[in-house]
Amino acid sequence: MTDFPKRIQINEEGPREGFQFEKGPIATERKIELIDALSGTGLQQIQVCSFVNPKRVPGMADADEVVQGFKRNPDVRYTALWLNQKGLERALATERLGLKASISMCASEGFMQRNQNRSFEENVSVQHTLVEMYKNHSVPIERGSIMAAFGCNFQGDISTSTVVEIVQQILDIASERNVGIKVISLADTMAWATPNAIHRVVGAVRERFPDLRLSLHLHDTRGMGIANAFAGLEMGVDIFDASVAGLGGCPFAGHKAAAGNVCTEDLVFMCHEMGIETGIDLEKLIEAARIAEDVVHHPLPGAVMKAGALDPMRSQLSEKATA
Amino acid sequence: MTDFPKRIQINEEGPREGFQFEKGPIATERKIELIDALSGTGLQQIQVCSFVNPKRVPGMADADEVVQGFKRNPDVRYTALWLNQKGLERALATERLGLKASISMCASEGFMQRNQNRSFEENVSVQHTLVEMYKNHSVPIERGSIMAAFGCNFQGDISTSTVVEIVQQILDIASERNVGIKVISLADTMAWATPNAIHRVVGAVRERFPDLRLSLHLHDTRGMGIANAFAGLEMGVDIFDASVAGLGGCPFAGHKAAAGNVCTEDLVFMCHEMGIETGIDLEKLIEAARIAEDVVHHPLPGAVMKAGALDPMRSQLSEKATA
Repeated sequence: MTDFPKRIQINEEGPREGFQFEKGPIATERKIELIDALSGTGLQQIQVCSFVNPKRVPGMADADEVVQGFKRNPDVRYTALWLNQKGLERALATERLGLKASISMCASEGFMQRNQNRSFEENVSVQHTLVEMYKNHSVPIERGSIMAAFGCNFQGDISTSTVVEIVQQILDIASERNVGIKVISLADTMAWATPNAIHRVVGAVRERFPDLRLSLHLHDTRGMGIANAFAGLEMGVDIFDASVAGLGGCPFAGHKAAAGNVCTEDLVFMCHEMGIETGIDLEKLIEAARIAEDVVHHPLPGAVMKAGALDPMRSQLSEKATA
Repeated sequence: MTDFPKRIQINEEGPREGFQFEKGPIATERKIELIDALSGTGLQQIQVCSFVNPKRVPGMADADEVVQGFKRNPDVRYTALWLNQKGLERALATERLGLKASISMCASEGFMQRNQNRSFEENVSVQHTLVEMYKNHSVPIERGSIMAAFGCNFQGDISTSTVVEIVQQILDIASERNVGIKVISLADTMAWATPNAIHRVVGAVRERFPDLRLSLHLHDTRGMGIANAFAGLEMGVDIFDASVAGLGGCPFAGHKAAAGNVCTEDLVFMCHEMGIETGIDLEKLIEAARIAEDVVHHPLPGAVMKAGALDPMRSQLSEKATA
């Protein structure tokens, strides 16, 4: 359990999570300002928007303009979310994104029905079709993702064996379609996980599929985000989705208090203090978090953005000591 | 590292933490309402106020009335904080509290100077005097506490060996005064800890003093509270201070964003989900947290009070399934 990674990769999801969730309209140029600020922090991957039905998600109506507007940093992969062929085609048409596709499953049929209007069986068939489409468009598919892997507001607890079976289903689809999956992302979409559940599920998937790299997507609705991320680190997980300042939430989780992903700068702070590298400049990230709060016009849950990190305090104290 | 306790004890510090920190005046009867709500949750110990100089801490000017006003539940030990003889005498004079005394040290001389206006050496002498006074008043002394055990805004990082030495100093004072210390409380007063630091410091103290029971007091200023509590649970720590709804903060930490203790109901939620007993009724505690928010008239950081726990959701789902 102390198999800490030396370095982790953080996939920033704040812009997509935040802009889809915020009620008030946010000016397109302010969205772009936040993406540009995030681009200079050392983050290697930023999900900038989702190409979804603007009637269902009005905050994403300007997705195309957002993508056309940001300054591209060559060291950053800019990604987007889509749920169907039309969304993917819009994303590809921008010609500015480094799209990566997932084989996307859900551990709860109830949530899948509600979120994407599909049964398990229908979804397997949709994934086969999507994989062919990704291949036709040369979109790399190296990742499988499992929503609601730790529990579901519409179905309750999810057994570890269900998650392991779904990983196998993802690998089966990939194998039938001649695609190599390297990463499995386990999403705590509705914040049912506690650290022991992370140990249990990650442990079971790792034991059965030792060659797969694991990634965690942790919503902070019940305040467990950072503790769950720590439990993931203990199990050697080295990819995390996170959301600057704690932006976001899921509009379809059926839950008014649904919170965003684990807060990026709080996660980076914890990692750096524990000697785990992220490649991110925490001070620049804190600046981006403050921009995020200004952009949405209300307080966001991030803690380190308000309290400050410890390294600047250490520097001040050592300057004082030598003065 | 999976030496989880079967059951933990939570010492509720919300009323004391909150009322000393909140800027606006809070009516005495509302303070009493919150204490009464907490008394019915299964909490075994509630710190209701501090007997300190009302000029320095105006929110505690009504401490005596608060103590006279609450309904005493015989299953709850009501405690208070004091910093000197005058404070203790006020607490004793109420005749309504189940006082317990600590030998109180600090791992940072800079903070001790600022918080209590004493050097390390002066404090050792003060503790000897206080222990004699506790004995004269028959106040039990079973606990030593160490503030700033994980780092200090005025002094920086604190070495593990410093903490171990201070535990020894506490035991030396106790031994000279013929007092038996059973519990050592390690306080992350200024939120410098991350989970690895909890493992390291708790591990070192436990290794050197295997017979002492350990307790953690974790401020959540940098969002690490729950993760640090989890790290403590992994090390077998079975006593935690916590603050309902995340009430509070330290007025002398030199930090405007200083947050309260780890949130009681979020901690209880995590423990229950992981099969660790607390003796607390989470639903009643969530009600008390909502009262706390109403009493202070602004949003408090607790997450589970907003999102709800999972057991009621599980019950609803199983009712639906059998309907």
